[in-house]
Amino acid sequence: MPTLSLADAEDLIASALRRCATREDNARSVARALVAAEADGQKGHGFSRVPSYAKQAKVGKVDGNAAPSAALPRPGLIAVDAAHGFAFPALDLATEMLPEVTKSQGIAAAAIKRSHHCGVAGHVVEKLAGEGLVSLVFANTPSAIAPAGGSVGIFGTNPIAFGCPLEGRAPIVIDLSLSKVARGGILAAKQRGEKIPEDWALDADGKPTTDPEAALKGTMAPLGGAKGATLALMVELLAAGLTGAQFAAEASSFLDSDGPPPGTGQLIIAVDPRAFGSAARFAVLAGMLEAQDGARLPGVRRYALRDKARRDGIVIADALKAEIQAL
Amino acid sequence: MPTLSLADAEDLIASALRRCATREDNARSVARALVAAEADGQKGHGFSRVPSYAKQAKVGKVDGNAAPSAALPRPGLIAVDAAHGFAFPALDLATEMLPEVTKSQGIAAAAIKRSHHCGVAGHVVEKLAGEGLVSLVFANTPSAIAPAGGSVGIFGTNPIAFGCPLEGRAPIVIDLSLSKVARGGILAAKQRGEKIPEDWALDADGKPTTDPEAALKGTMAPLGGAKGATLALMVELLAAGLTGAQFAAEASSFLDSDGPPPGTGQLIIAVDPRAFGSAARFAVLAGMLEAQDGARLPGVRRYALRDKARRDGIVIADALKAEIQAL
Repeated sequence: MPTLSLADAEDLIASALRRCATREDNARSVARALVAAEADGQKGHGFSRVPSYAKQAKVGKVDGNAAPSAALPRPGLIAVDAAHGFAFPALDLATEMLPEVTKSQGIAAAAIKRSHHCGVAGHVVEKLAGEGLVSLVFANTPSAIAPAGGSVGIFGTNPIAFGCPLEGRAPIVIDLSLSKVARGGILAAKQRGEKIPEDWALDADGKPTTDPEAALKGTMAPLGGAKGATLALMVELLAAGLTGAQFAAEASSFLDSDGPPPGTGQLIIAVDPRAFGSAARFAVLAGMLEAQDGARLPGVRRYALRDKARRDGIVIADALKAEIQAL
Repeated sequence: MPTLSLADAEDLIASALRRCATREDNARSVARALVAAEADGQKGHGFSRVPSYAKQAKVGKVDGNAAPSAALPRPGLIAVDAAHGFAFPALDLATEMLPEVTKSQGIAAAAIKRSHHCGVAGHVVEKLAGEGLVSLVFANTPSAIAPAGGSVGIFGTNPIAFGCPLEGRAPIVIDLSLSKVARGGILAAKQRGEKIPEDWALDADGKPTTDPEAALKGTMAPLGGAKGATLALMVELLAAGLTGAQFAAEASSFLDSDGPPPGTGQLIIAVDPRAFGSAARFAVLAGMLEAQDGARLPGVRRYALRDKARRDGIVIADALKAEIQAL
């Protein structure tokens, strides 16, 4: 299988997107995000997304030529309209504007609507941590999780990300979705003809199932049972309700070219820890955690994979590379 | 067992606290919070806390005469010093100041340090929802949860609360701690001489245990395994790291009169949904949820119990009433 440098991988993806009705700056933004995901070992948000993204741009489900725009309805709020383009140019705009607003106001939020798949939410908080800011990201996705006691998926897998700067070293980056496992794990079990563990998913009646077919027709189990489903509701209300985006149950798939744009949302909240004089405290807790055998700070594995990818490049499957080149 | 009206219960608790080195306004604030918890069926944060609170005030572990103070280091940030008093007067101050700041800035935060047990975090977000605001509360508590892969508790059970107004009806109120179960469940099993389920707690070596004794010497299992422990880290960094409060591992117990003040922290973030014109959207998701058999909005059970308590009063055990009267 061929190995690509990060720069070559970015060129490969950007030029494929340009050939599929996406303008240069947007294609670059998307390519940067997907390569960064792949480099961090987040394959579900990396190269594998290119064919699907490109097809959605080609048919106009994603507007590859959209220009995100921003308004400031209040001194601490940035309202970003992703204009049914890719999420990444809108996220770039938000993270470019947030540091100045956050540093003057102490706290600020960027609410993104008419958006799409946000990719690795951890990259957003990592960028803001690079500006010395503590931040949270909430994003919604198409339906995957049912409310506690119910059986119909009306919440997405709804990632929460959190970033926190550490003086003199890489930030703490938390990035987790609220489903117990990723849907890819169920798809893989189905392909192998295997059963899935009983706590991964629920069938269409809301009952635990070990049959991957039944699971794919049902809903994903939230992490931690009813509490996890409740957190998914919270993220849905923040990422879509507050921002004015489409709820999970109103959103079309991020994966295929069918239907209208998904129109999902993202909410980013950033705080300047210098306002409280507390920036040095984060390292105290990081030290307590790292003093324990077997424990490590979230994000550390991704940084190690990223270093390796920068040094050695990233492997891409022949078939996927050929598919991207043929787009 | 005697039944008390809410007003009588408040008088009973306030006068006990006044006799234990707590000034009138602080005693009223604490009594209101504990009665509200009891009325909502949150017994772990209700009457049962009075003897322990009073003893802590008597020996000065909590300063019953403290006056919380607030500064505005930035236009959107309120820095509250609870001055090692009870948390409730500081939370009252924060929730009184937040609506005006949030409505002008669009988003605001109150960071409380040198604080104590925050009680029912859901009451804070409910009050802000009454002002039309969406809000989040993060609070830390003394050590209970170990990091993923580790075995030493350095995070609290660390509640997250979220509130969201619904036009013409009571708000959505989410309030959950990040441990799988409350420690009280383990204490009860120990008293009954019973084993506990394997997924409730970990022993001092970080291994799952069914022995309640070993569990009490170890740590509480986080909800949802490693992801839950990571959320507990996030809350610790927000509620204590950012606010400048004591981390879980630095904090003394909320329950006994030993040691210095716990000095824990709370972070409240509030957003004005009217800034995005999205306030009516929350009811859309609430409607989708309530259309499902078996699903109900978080907070609904508490509202029902509260209505009943307002109507019928609250039962208090004879022994506890006598203990409070004797303080």
